[in-house]
Amino acid sequence: MTTIALDAMGGDHGLLATVDGAADLSREDIDVHVLLVGDVRAIDERLRHVRYDPRRLSVVSANGAVGMGDSPRETLDRNPDCSVLVAARLVRDGDAAALVSAGNTGATILAASDTFQRLPGIRRGALAAVYPTELRHGPRQDPFALMLDVGATLSASADDLVGFAVMGSAYSSIVSEILAPRVALLSNGTEPSKGTPAIVEAHARLTGAALAFAGNVEGLDIPRGTVDVVVCDGFLGNVVLKMLEGVSDVVRNLARDASGRSLQWRVGLAMLGDGLKELHERTDWKRYGGAPLLGFDRPVLKAHGRSEARAIRNAIKVATKAVQGDLTGRIRDGLRSCGSGS
Amino acid sequence: MTTIALDAMGGDHGLLATVDGAADLSREDIDVHVLLVGDVRAIDERLRHVRYDPRRLSVVSANGAVGMGDSPRETLDRNPDCSVLVAARLVRDGDAAALVSAGNTGATILAASDTFQRLPGIRRGALAAVYPTELRHGPRQDPFALMLDVGATLSASADDLVGFAVMGSAYSSIVSEILAPRVALLSNGTEPSKGTPAIVEAHARLTGAALAFAGNVEGLDIPRGTVDVVVCDGFLGNVVLKMLEGVSDVVRNLARDASGRSLQWRVGLAMLGDGLKELHERTDWKRYGGAPLLGFDRPVLKAHGRSEARAIRNAIKVATKAVQGDLTGRIRDGLRSCGSGS
Repeated sequence: MTTIALDAMGGDHGLLATVDGAADLSREDIDVHVLLVGDVRAIDERLRHVRYDPRRLSVVSANGAVGMGDSPRETLDRNPDCSVLVAARLVRDGDAAALVSAGNTGATILAASDTFQRLPGIRRGALAAVYPTELRHGPRQDPFALMLDVGATLSASADDLVGFAVMGSAYSSIVSEILAPRVALLSNGTEPSKGTPAIVEAHARLTGAALAFAGNVEGLDIPRGTVDVVVCDGFLGNVVLKMLEGVSDVVRNLARDASGRSLQWRVGLAMLGDGLKELHERTDWKRYGGAPLLGFDRPVLKAHGRSEARAIRNAIKVATKAVQGDLTGRIRDGLRSCGSGS
Repeated sequence: MTTIALDAMGGDHGLLATVDGAADLSREDIDVHVLLVGDVRAIDERLRHVRYDPRRLSVVSANGAVGMGDSPRETLDRNPDCSVLVAARLVRDGDAAALVSAGNTGATILAASDTFQRLPGIRRGALAAVYPTELRHGPRQDPFALMLDVGATLSASADDLVGFAVMGSAYSSIVSEILAPRVALLSNGTEPSKGTPAIVEAHARLTGAALAFAGNVEGLDIPRGTVDVVVCDGFLGNVVLKMLEGVSDVVRNLARDASGRSLQWRVGLAMLGDGLKELHERTDWKRYGGAPLLGFDRPVLKAHGRSEARAIRNAIKVATKAVQGDLTGRIRDGLRSCGSGS
């Protein structure tokens, strides 16, 4: 039985998403126990309205939470018993094997760095996200690839990038079930000499490392999905990910506001709008369950703030998969084989 | 009469593009004289096959050229009389007012930095490119925005970014005829505190500068086209521009290879494929004429290597517009008002 600590107070939909998601999951045939961490009275009240398996759910008391608009550092310092910190301590102390939160992203990252140890060789954590690609990936034919970092570490050294590559490879191999995920550095050209000094050095260090390193990829390769895992610093990852969102938005806007355009455009855009929506749904956080925060000695899954019950349920499932696949052990081994973390 | 020095030997299509493009332009009602710089015998031979106005075209001799696959630095050092260097010297010495080349990009940048002076306050040049956007820009309702740098300066300091903002504003105002182009820094959030230290410092310096500074934009804003000029370092610009190309490629691939998909997807994609092609043609280098290389005391226009006659003709027209609008003077003034270049 894998135990997951869920920050029950985090996210835009609060208990309606967290309690309901955990309750739904408790009735499925999956070997997981969820600790709902938060306001006991409110959680118990919500539990009275849903069906769940009481052998698979427990409630752990915490006081208060970090709001989506709060300053993370300040709120955590002021309230060491808020839900995300209590949940993180349960994981640190071995009462749970992984942390899941749909709350304030900054607070989740800080709670993890305050409470967990960084893995040997890892200086900074990385947040990873999936995005839709033309090519499919792995035995499940996933229509998405993994990108990291997308926001935890603004500017990355060569060491950081090597760590991200190892962590992304381990995560993709466990969660997407790809035997040897193809990992590449995002750069301004495919030659090993291309890119910032950090990228050039990371390229040299990853060449010959014990992972399927595919060299550099360029901007062109992102929507195509040439590799399974794209590695970059958090600044670039943020811009790229938001750009992909922006492209979908634009196509949808064009489809909605198509008057004055040729009939061909109108019909094409309207139809593509529906298709894109479908593609989006296949890859979005609601189904996929969230973004892993990698680099700590405990698995952390950051579900999207807008998560509803199904997304929370999926995030718990992904966290369980990460625990059962020994994500942190795999990352440790990978780092050791790359000359980091020894 | 504005005189433009054209590297007649550069580009994938060689004289068939350069001589033909200049010849076509010589017969139009536009006050420009083109110096065709290169192998006199070959140029004269090509001129015998096209119609042109001999009062508007001259041939200037040069020996050899930098091939598209050659190492720029090596070739220029070995051959100081190659076409791009002779053309640049004509501009330096006042025999022509601007340089146009469809040749090796690296060689064009090096020829400019070897031959011209950098404008006061400019440490590194920037290559600017237009890309398609949802929103339209300026009085001509251009369906594209300008982005710089897209490849001349890999990593940019705050000074560099301020310089790029001033240069992009001046160029957009002259060539796209936008009175006060809205200029923004590309970052990972709109708040002034977001971004790398260079971006944060550039943001502070541009606030209150004598241009229409719109703060930071994010990845989302790129396809939408929230501003007229997007400023970033050459590494990021390269990734972003190639990503936009990649998105178009993917849509076209999906449209071509639509078997096995739902009818809705097939029809939508096929129709959108045509629409995208149309949009592309409106914004691509063939029509638009090329990317300006900014930062030198002489205007330089880099036409795409794949340019055919029409693209060369348009590149010469854009260079002429830059000269007649006093691009370098406008940039000098802009830099001075931002506290650079004094």
